[in-house]
Amino acid sequence: MDCIFCKIISGEIPAAKIYEDENTLAFLDASPNNHGHTLVVPKTHAKNILDVSEDALARMMPAVKKVSKAVFEGMGAAGLNITMNNEPPAGQVIFHLHIHIIPRFHGDGLKVWTRKIPYKSGEMEEVAEKIRAVLHTLIF
Amino acid sequence: MDCIFCKIISGEIPAAKIYEDENTLAFLDASPNNHGHTLVVPKTHAKNILDVSEDALARMMPAVKKVSKAVFEGMGAAGLNITMNNEPPAGQVIFHLHIHIIPRFHGDGLKVWTRKIPYKSGEMEEVAEKIRAVLHTLIF
Repeated sequence: MDCIFCKIISGEIPAAKIYEDENTLAFLDASPNNHGHTLVVPKTHAKNILDVSEDALARMMPAVKKVSKAVFEGMGAAGLNITMNNEPPAGQVIFHLHIHIIPRFHGDGLKVWTRKIPYKSGEMEEVAEKIRAVLHTLIF
Repeated sequence: MDCIFCKIISGEIPAAKIYEDENTLAFLDASPNNHGHTLVVPKTHAKNILDVSEDALARMMPAVKKVSKAVFEGMGAAGLNITMNNEPPAGQVIFHLHIHIIPRFHGDGLKVWTRKIPYKSGEMEEVAEKIRAVLHTLIF
């Protein structure tokens, strides 16, 4: 299967990884809506909400909770949008289920899907490190 | 606590209920982005992702999965946005954790938070019945 997120999970394609457990991987979105925008994906391929099992979805939640707190604190955010888009009319572009965790800041305009704020060289790894530092305090 | 969603859960305020289990209630958003826009809430009060427990979040997922499938099929949708807004800078208005399930249709413009399509008299109960009819086939 030619799935970019399966290749990130297997390590074939690099990513700024934030968190990993038995069922789930989290990494920075390379085309972020705000810096710190993170994706949480199940390691077992599922297309979206329509074909994922209830159990597989539930098993992602410990990661969603931990990563949300880490993105919020690590980025000094004032809010978080947590979103899953399912099928193209809902904006799904990559067909491996992924939950977006998008930090929000006062006055940032809530431009959820239209705006992109690219990382400059080196910035992505700096952001990942900020978030991982908070995660470390949550887990250990 | 003066929480509108706690009052819907207790039955003090009416709602077009879609689904209920031990942990979770789902009902139509009274100010929908598209008809069939449904909210899933935990019965135990939590403000949002920042204070809900991992377990409480995971226990909502069987309802999220079932209701998503029912909204998709019941409304004849082409996609679904599933979204949780946390804190006011992310658009949270009611401070009881809620997961939006918003049906999408081809060419509907993905106007996620700006557009409202009010129900006319009687329409809300018709929409709820369409979704419940699909849920019935999933559960029984």
